Amino acid sequence: MRFPPPLRPGDVVAVFAGSSPFDPTLAWRGLGWLASRYRLRFDRSIFERHGYLAGSDERRRQELSSYLADASVRALIAVRGGYGLSRIVHEIDWSLLREYPRWIVGFSDVTALHVEAARLGIASIHGPMVAALGRGDTWTRSHVLSILETPLAPFYLAGLRTVHPGVAEGPLAGGNLTMLHACAAAGRLSLPEGCILLLEDVTERPYRLDRMLTTLQAGGHLAKVSGVLLGDFTDCDPGPDGVTAEQVLGERLGVLGVPVLSGAPVGHGLRNLPMVLGRWILLDGGKGEAISEAGR
Amino acid sequence: MRFPPPLRPGDVVAVFAGSSPFDPTLAWRGLGWLASRYRLRFDRSIFERHGYLAGSDERRRQELSSYLADASVRALIAVRGGYGLSRIVHEIDWSLLREYPRWIVGFSDVTALHVEAARLGIASIHGPMVAALGRGDTWTRSHVLSILETPLAPFYLAGLRTVHPGVAEGPLAGGNLTMLHACAAAGRLSLPEGCILLLEDVTERPYRLDRMLTTLQAGGHLAKVSGVLLGDFTDCDPGPDGVTAEQVLGERLGVLGVPVLSGAPVGHGLRNLPMVLGRWILLDGGKGEAISEAGR
Repeated sequence: MRFPPPLRPGDVVAVFAGSSPFDPTLAWRGLGWLASRYRLRFDRSIFERHGYLAGSDERRRQELSSYLADASVRALIAVRGGYGLSRIVHEIDWSLLREYPRWIVGFSDVTALHVEAARLGIASIHGPMVAALGRGDTWTRSHVLSILETPLAPFYLAGLRTVHPGVAEGPLAGGNLTMLHACAAAGRLSLPEGCILLLEDVTERPYRLDRMLTTLQAGGHLAKVSGVLLGDFTDCDPGPDGVTAEQVLGERLGVLGVPVLSGAPVGHGLRNLPMVLGRWILLDGGKGEAISEAGR
Repeated sequence: MRFPPPLRPGDVVAVFAGSSPFDPTLAWRGLGWLASRYRLRFDRSIFERHGYLAGSDERRRQELSSYLADASVRALIAVRGGYGLSRIVHEIDWSLLREYPRWIVGFSDVTALHVEAARLGIASIHGPMVAALGRGDTWTRSHVLSILETPLAPFYLAGLRTVHPGVAEGPLAGGNLTMLHACAAAGRLSLPEGCILLLEDVTERPYRLDRMLTTLQAGGHLAKVSGVLLGDFTDCDPGPDGVTAEQVLGERLGVLGVPVLSGAPVGHGLRNLPMVLGRWILLDGGKGEAISEAGR
């Protein structure tokens, strides 16, 4: 696993909109705040709207490709998720990322890019995006700065709930379950062997979570997983049958026979703690902790 | 492609519940009507409810397996769809179907079984299930009888709308888009070369239809398609962006460069015309027709 260099103030940061349109006010605020610390690169075409897409496939593909081709860009931060990267991700020349490793930052729809980075063995940052930085809360902003500038600082998450006991360690991988499932259908998902799988999702009925986990398992993807760290499953409310997301996650992940811990403040909830995918992480079901040592 | 023998009155028909629970009254009515013409085989355990499943995985798997192992069963008809076959389909011994070809009947979640049958080169029936037969409308019942007893009668569907022009022919394949996508993620989807792809869905936002079609294309599955026949996309309403299911289907399927016809009364709408998957079908975009000749 290769880690792109940490950012320093004044480094070039590119902002791209590969998915859905967003609130322009939040985006401008987020851009303004980032520009106070880094040299920002972005094009005004990010504000284009084509239905549920932030501009045409051509625009979004060229934008992403041009930043990947520019070695001066040290991080690529998405404005917002939604939907859209699935339409272009298979047409991007990903060898550029291997040639010049740099940080890709985002979550939700951006999971499609994390999947590509993981395939190349390049670490990436699962976390808040530009529009979220525009909301102005200090917690989010300070965590984003920390992870950009000290991505391999010691990491310690306590107070997790142990859904299935055990201790496991491996490289952190994953992201949004719906997107991981879509990447599998597209034939692009390749989880690192022995990984700790991070999962979160939003507005999916429990039976849909079941279907996605079940098909990922049937497809052999979950056989590579040595532990699971669950983030938020926001608005994944039960249907008339009353089965909850917690029940489904517990049951479907229980059959894997690996430790499963829940309660990571990651995803579409109030707090979205950025984490470095690709980092070595230890899950301890006895202590309810997730730990990464400094430097790896 | 092999076609199981047509049914005759008095033949053994097995009713299974591999997916979600259902309205018992409708099921009893459907069972009663079927029993007036065929020798029915079913177990009362079909009425079990485990959350969104019609009984445990073990129960549903054993039920399906035992009917597949019994050569006297000439057709297996699902009670209802919903969700659940994804959990057991990869644990079934499908060689039994190749050994004793017989009709599998259903749609929606049952697409998971059509995918398995297609992989073995066995035709199957995409159409209404037992609970729908319990509603008692003559149109549905007479079409189901016809397809069971004369599955290779001449087939003629007119008045279709031409979304993309052209003429194409090939074996009919497909079913529920969400399930085809899930089968792809599970590594089980193998569409027949040159097939005419039947698609329908229910309660999926247009951007989700986009994601599923996009990932099926990225995964190479749609390269095998020589034409598309669209059924109903029920309650696939636009989100705040206003993009409709029709727009998405037109745009995403348009890039395939094959004829696309819509308006087949197939799926979750008022009328669900049964069709034989595996039959050779001619799509004529000029005339707005879909035609199968007798006997193939």
